[in-house]
Amino acid sequence: MGQTNVLYQHGTLALLVPGLLAGTLTMKELLQHGDTGIGTGEGLNGELIILDGIPYQADSFGKVHVLKNDFTMPFANIHLADFKFLTDLKDADPEKFATAALSGKTNSNTFFSVRVKGNFSYMKTRAVVKSAPPFDTLEETAKKQSIFEKHDVEGTLLSYYSPTLFHGAAVGGFHNHFLANDHSIGGHVLDFKLASGKLDIQLFDTLEQHLPVDNTEFMDHDFSKDNIADVIERTE
Amino acid sequence: MGQTNVLYQHGTLALLVPGLLAGTLTMKELLQHGDTGIGTGEGLNGELIILDGIPYQADSFGKVHVLKNDFTMPFANIHLADFKFLTDLKDADPEKFATAALSGKTNSNTFFSVRVKGNFSYMKTRAVVKSAPPFDTLEETAKKQSIFEKHDVEGTLLSYYSPTLFHGAAVGGFHNHFLANDHSIGGHVLDFKLASGKLDIQLFDTLEQHLPVDNTEFMDHDFSKDNIADVIERTE
Repeated sequence: MGQTNVLYQHGTLALLVPGLLAGTLTMKELLQHGDTGIGTGEGLNGELIILDGIPYQADSFGKVHVLKNDFTMPFANIHLADFKFLTDLKDADPEKFATAALSGKTNSNTFFSVRVKGNFSYMKTRAVVKSAPPFDTLEETAKKQSIFEKHDVEGTLLSYYSPTLFHGAAVGGFHNHFLANDHSIGGHVLDFKLASGKLDIQLFDTLEQHLPVDNTEFMDHDFSKDNIADVIERTE
Repeated sequence: MGQTNVLYQHGTLALLVPGLLAGTLTMKELLQHGDTGIGTGEGLNGELIILDGIPYQADSFGKVHVLKNDFTMPFANIHLADFKFLTDLKDADPEKFATAALSGKTNSNTFFSVRVKGNFSYMKTRAVVKSAPPFDTLEETAKKQSIFEKHDVEGTLLSYYSPTLFHGAAVGGFHNHFLANDHSIGGHVLDFKLASGKLDIQLFDTLEQHLPVDNTEFMDHDFSKDNIADVIERTE
């Protein structure tokens, strides 16, 4: 079931850039490594968030579903929750959130997760549209995303912070997903304003980076021309 | 004792660049993750190679020692050996070795280890000189390295291959250490000519990246000005 000091990652963000979007891990396999996480489905099928062991998908039509065990993913992060209270937060935009989560520093050299439960006066998310094989590249997919906005919504923002050194494997900095308590909105967070909430944090000393070595397209792909870091910067 | 599909890494190569050379893991702790590996000691104290569970250090005076359990390291790779025979190799320089290890491809998208046991008609290694706190940067240390050469020596070359995406965390490409059977030469491999030998390979699907989160210097360091990739390229 995983250990609380370990962040498990299946796939890398780099493999989404050229469109290596085959589902290479099942939800059942992923949930063996924790109860809290984020990810995306095969073909960038929606934005995933796992809370208290339950995997939710926010799709491009604005619907939230609970996922089945055989749902497959090209990329996901998961860990076993053991959050510690860090601070209360009021009137916070993404910048104020980041400063609070980093305890005033500008960056961190290790991986950590942040969970914010609270009342959001504004939430803006996106969910990408699933593509079928041959899969789109990340830039093409990003053009087809749906954008959702909501005011005054209660919910959970789940964030993973990755050190800059691992940019490409992960999103360097914060990667935020959201789920409303009433499931009225979810997805990859583009912007928000937190009216008031509680910020919990969990530090990891280990990244368990799992790669889809049985996927021939991944193993045979030449990443050298994909300009990974720039594309992730523009699209994530 | 580790699993045969996992490469365990303590620290990153990036932290050697600015001279974050404190020993943050003991040999006893490292050996819990495998029986085969490479690394360096606190202050870049020699070049390490672990074979069949025994940790050896090639120091800057050209001596080889067996290390004790309380020896500490800022950086190491280790795994549980389960090598498979890949090919016999004759008259091979580093380039021919790399082509054979990659089965003719120019790169790999996952981590793997290669072990070559054989007769080397030429071996050129280096071992760095230990620095004391305040530690030297990797570039300063590299200027003080000792170079060793030997002809017609039997021994084991142990290599780890890391995908380019992880350059900085590891050495992108091959990272080779060597130990002569008679312990007459060892260290970080700079050049070699293999007369004849057997090449064994072990593929990993998981990198277990462990970071020294209890080391304040590491956690507080700003890596953004260290030009990590370039320095590793020049010095490793």
